[in-house]
Amino acid sequence: MTDQTRLDEILAQLDAGQDAALTRLLEFLRIPSISTDPAHRGDVRDAAKWLCSELESLGFEAKIHDTPGHPMVVAHSAPGDARPLLFYGHYDVQPVDPLELWDRPPFEPEIQETDDGKVIRGRGASDDKGQLMTFVEAFRAWKAVHGSLPSDLVLLFEGEEESGSPSLQPFLSEHAEDLRASLAMICDTGLYADGRPAITTQLRGLVGEEVIIRAADRDLHSGSFGGLAANPVMILAQALGALKDGDGRVVLPGFYDGVEDLDEDLARDWQALGFDAADFLGRVGLSEPIGEKGCTPLEMVWNRPTAEINGIAGGYAGEGFKTVLPAEARAKVSFRLTGTQDPQKIRDAFRAHIRRFVPADCRVEFHEHGGGPASVMDVSDPAFAAAKQALTEEWGREAAFIGAGGSIPIAGDFKEILGMDSMLIGFGRDDDRIHSPNEKYNVESFARGARSWARILASLR
Amino acid sequence: MTDQTRLDEILAQLDAGQDAALTRLLEFLRIPSISTDPAHRGDVRDAAKWLCSELESLGFEAKIHDTPGHPMVVAHSAPGDARPLLFYGHYDVQPVDPLELWDRPPFEPEIQETDDGKVIRGRGASDDKGQLMTFVEAFRAWKAVHGSLPSDLVLLFEGEEESGSPSLQPFLSEHAEDLRASLAMICDTGLYADGRPAITTQLRGLVGEEVIIRAADRDLHSGSFGGLAANPVMILAQALGALKDGDGRVVLPGFYDGVEDLDEDLARDWQALGFDAADFLGRVGLSEPIGEKGCTPLEMVWNRPTAEINGIAGGYAGEGFKTVLPAEARAKVSFRLTGTQDPQKIRDAFRAHIRRFVPADCRVEFHEHGGGPASVMDVSDPAFAAAKQALTEEWGREAAFIGAGGSIPIAGDFKEILGMDSMLIGFGRDDDRIHSPNEKYNVESFARGARSWARILASLR
Repeated sequence: MTDQTRLDEILAQLDAGQDAALTRLLEFLRIPSISTDPAHRGDVRDAAKWLCSELESLGFEAKIHDTPGHPMVVAHSAPGDARPLLFYGHYDVQPVDPLELWDRPPFEPEIQETDDGKVIRGRGASDDKGQLMTFVEAFRAWKAVHGSLPSDLVLLFEGEEESGSPSLQPFLSEHAEDLRASLAMICDTGLYADGRPAITTQLRGLVGEEVIIRAADRDLHSGSFGGLAANPVMILAQALGALKDGDGRVVLPGFYDGVEDLDEDLARDWQALGFDAADFLGRVGLSEPIGEKGCTPLEMVWNRPTAEINGIAGGYAGEGFKTVLPAEARAKVSFRLTGTQDPQKIRDAFRAHIRRFVPADCRVEFHEHGGGPASVMDVSDPAFAAAKQALTEEWGREAAFIGAGGSIPIAGDFKEILGMDSMLIGFGRDDDRIHSPNEKYNVESFARGARSWARILASLR
Repeated sequence: MTDQTRLDEILAQLDAGQDAALTRLLEFLRIPSISTDPAHRGDVRDAAKWLCSELESLGFEAKIHDTPGHPMVVAHSAPGDARPLLFYGHYDVQPVDPLELWDRPPFEPEIQETDDGKVIRGRGASDDKGQLMTFVEAFRAWKAVHGSLPSDLVLLFEGEEESGSPSLQPFLSEHAEDLRASLAMICDTGLYADGRPAITTQLRGLVGEEVIIRAADRDLHSGSFGGLAANPVMILAQALGALKDGDGRVVLPGFYDGVEDLDEDLARDWQALGFDAADFLGRVGLSEPIGEKGCTPLEMVWNRPTAEINGIAGGYAGEGFKTVLPAEARAKVSFRLTGTQDPQKIRDAFRAHIRRFVPADCRVEFHEHGGGPASVMDVSDPAFAAAKQALTEEWGREAAFIGAGGSIPIAGDFKEILGMDSMLIGFGRDDDRIHSPNEKYNVESFARGARSWARILASLR
C-alpha cells in the first residue's frame, strides 16, 4: 500500500489481464490430473509440466521433483532480503464419477453465467487449480509492473493431495533446506460461510484409535451364558459411554492439559462472525449444540477438544434377532485436539481408560489410525494483521481470523518439519461442489483471489 | 414303587423288549421329517402318521390334526380318576447339511459301538424322536404288564418345533379343553452336564428390543461437527453403558420387582451340582464370572435377570478409518427375566431409560422382538418330589432340580394357555451333536429314559 510496491498498478494489471488469466486456467483444467487413478498417471505429470513451464515463463527457477508417487513442483524467485514466503497448492484433482451427474464433461471446462455471477465450471476449478492459479496470476501481474518477481518466494505444488499426500512428509524432510521460509501461504480453503474473507489461524489436531475387545472364542447363547460370561459389546459401551461426563467433558486424566481459552481478540473476531448454530445444524437436520457446557457453538468446533465414536460394530445387527453374547466388539474413536494437547499422551490415556473396563479373561487390541497435534498459528506475527488488513481492503468486508474443526495435515507438516506457521487463505464458497459433480469456482473468487494475494504480497514487502 | 403299579414287572418288560424298541426307533428315524424344508412336507406328515399308528396300536385314541403348518398328533388314554398328565415331544427334525460332514447317510440310522457304549446314530436320534419314544416305550411296557394303558394321559407331539412352532399357540388355544392336564412332561432336554438326572424347574423369560437412534440426516465430518453435533453412537453407548451399575446390577427402576432369592432347598440342590464355572467358561475361552456381585455363578445364569447387548452397529467399522459423526446407531438388546418380572414393564422402563439420553433434535425408534415371563414351576407340588425320587432310583445318582438360563417357549405356552406347570426331563447328553452332523443318542439314555418314565408314571399313580 505504499508507492514502492506499486500495488494499484498491479491490481489494474490483474483486472486488465483477467480474460487471459481465465484462458490459462481453462487450459490447466483440461488436463485430467486425477491422482488416485493409475490410468491418469501421465496426466498428473502433464499438469506438473504445464505448471512448471508457466512458472519458468514468469522467471521462476522451477523444477519437477519425482517422488515414489506423483511429482512435486518446486519453484523459487531470486533470493533477496525480503521475508521468505512459501506458497502451497495442489495441481491434482478428485475423480469425476458419477460421470452421469455432470452437466458437461468434467475436463471440458467453460465459463458460465449463473444467477450468482460468472463461474468456472469443471473438475479442479475450485479444488485446487483455480485457487493455486490465484498465486500465479498475482506473481505475473507483479512481474509485469515491476519487471521482476518479488524476491524470496518459494512455491510448492503437490500432485498427491487428493490421494492422502503419501510422499509429502518425506519430501519436506529431504528438501527442508530448499523449502525453508518464514511463513507458508496455503490456498486450499474457502471464504467464511457468508462470503467474508478469512484467515484460518487454528486447526484441531487428531488422534485416531481403533479398539477391539474379544471375549469368548465364539458367539455364545445369551440364555446359557447371559449374566455370567463377559459381553464385549456391553464392555465397550460402558467404556466408551464413560468417556464424557454429564457436562460433555472428556474424563481422561490430563486430557485438557494444553487446552487454552480463546484470547480476547479472537473471541471478538469469532463473535463478530455471527455464527448461527441453529442454522448450521439445521442444514443437516439437527438443531441443538450438544458440546461442552459453558462453551459457545463456535468454540465447540474450533477451540475445544472432543472425543467421538466414528464407528462401532459387534454381534448381530441385521434383520430379526439373535440372542447371542458376541465374541467381539470393535469401535473407531477419534479425538480432536486443540492448543498444545499431546496426541501420544491422549492415546495412552484412552487405552488406559478402556483397559480399566476389560475383565482379565478378555483381550483388548488397539490400532493406531494417525494423529497429530493441533496447529495454532502465532497471530502476534505482524504478517497476520497485515494479511487481514489486505483481505479487508480487497473484499470490502472485515476479514476475520477463524478456526477450523478439522485437521489440515499440510499445516501440521509445515510446522513440524519446516518449523513454520501457515496462513490458510482461500476463496472457495460453500456451494463450489468440490469432490462432487459440476464443481465450479466463482470468477469473482478467482479475480479477487489474485488481487488478494497481490495486496498481501505488497503488505509483506 | 408299590405292588399295585407292578413297576418291577414293567421295568423287566422294558429290558426284555429293548431290541424291539430300538428297531422301532430306527424305523421312525428313517423318515426324513425336516420341518423347515418344504420338499419334506410329505415326510413330516408320514412321521405323524407313523406315530399315530404306533399310538393306536397301543390303545390310544390318536388323531392327526392339520394346522396351517405341519400336523399335531394328539392322543388320549381312557379317562379315569388319576391325575391327568400331558406328554410333549416333537417328531420333526433339523436339516442335515452340511451333508459331507456326516459319516453315514443321516436318515439311514444304525446302532454303533463306541468307547462310550452303544449309540443310536442318525438325524433326530436325540432331538427329539429318541426322547419322544422313551414315553411311548414306557406306555407300551405298562400296557403289556397291566393289560391296559395308564388312564388320563394326553399326548401332544408337534411337527414344527425346529421351525419355531408357528402353529403351536393357536393350536393350544383352540384345543385347550382337549389338552388340559394337571402337569406337562416335556422330554426335549438333557441330563445335567455330568450325566446326573435332572428336572428343570425354572426357565428365564425374555424381552427382546431393538433401538435405533437417528441424529443428522447424513454422516457428518467429525472435524466440522465434532463436539457440536449429536453423535448417535456416543449417545447409544452412554445409554447402554449405563444399563448396569458397577456391581453388575441393572439400574432400570423396578427392574428387580418379582425377582426372588433361591429358596433353601433349591440352593442346596444347585450347590450339590458342583458347577465349575471356571471349567464351563474355560470351554469357550473365558474364565471369570462377570455377573452380579454376591451371586454364585449358577444363580447368575439361572436365577438372576440380566441385560445383554446382542448386537450393535453404527458409522464406519470397516478397514481403515472414516472421521464421521454417523447419522444413526442401532442395537439389539435382550433381557433375561426371572421370578415374576413383568416383560412389558421392563420393556417400558428400558425405553424410558434410553429416551433420557436422547437429545431433543434426535429421534429414537424401538422395535419389539418378542418376550415372555420366566417360567417358575411350583416344586411344592408333590409330583416334583416323586419324579425326582424316581429319577434318583433309576440312575443311581441323586437327581437335581435345576434351572435353565434360556427360555423354552413351550413351557411358557403351557403355563399361559393351559395354566399348567411343566416338568422338563430329558436324557440327552452334551455330546449328542443335536442340530449338527452325526447326531446320536446313547442307547443307555434311550433305555434308562423309558425306565425313568415308567418309574415316574408309577410314582404319580
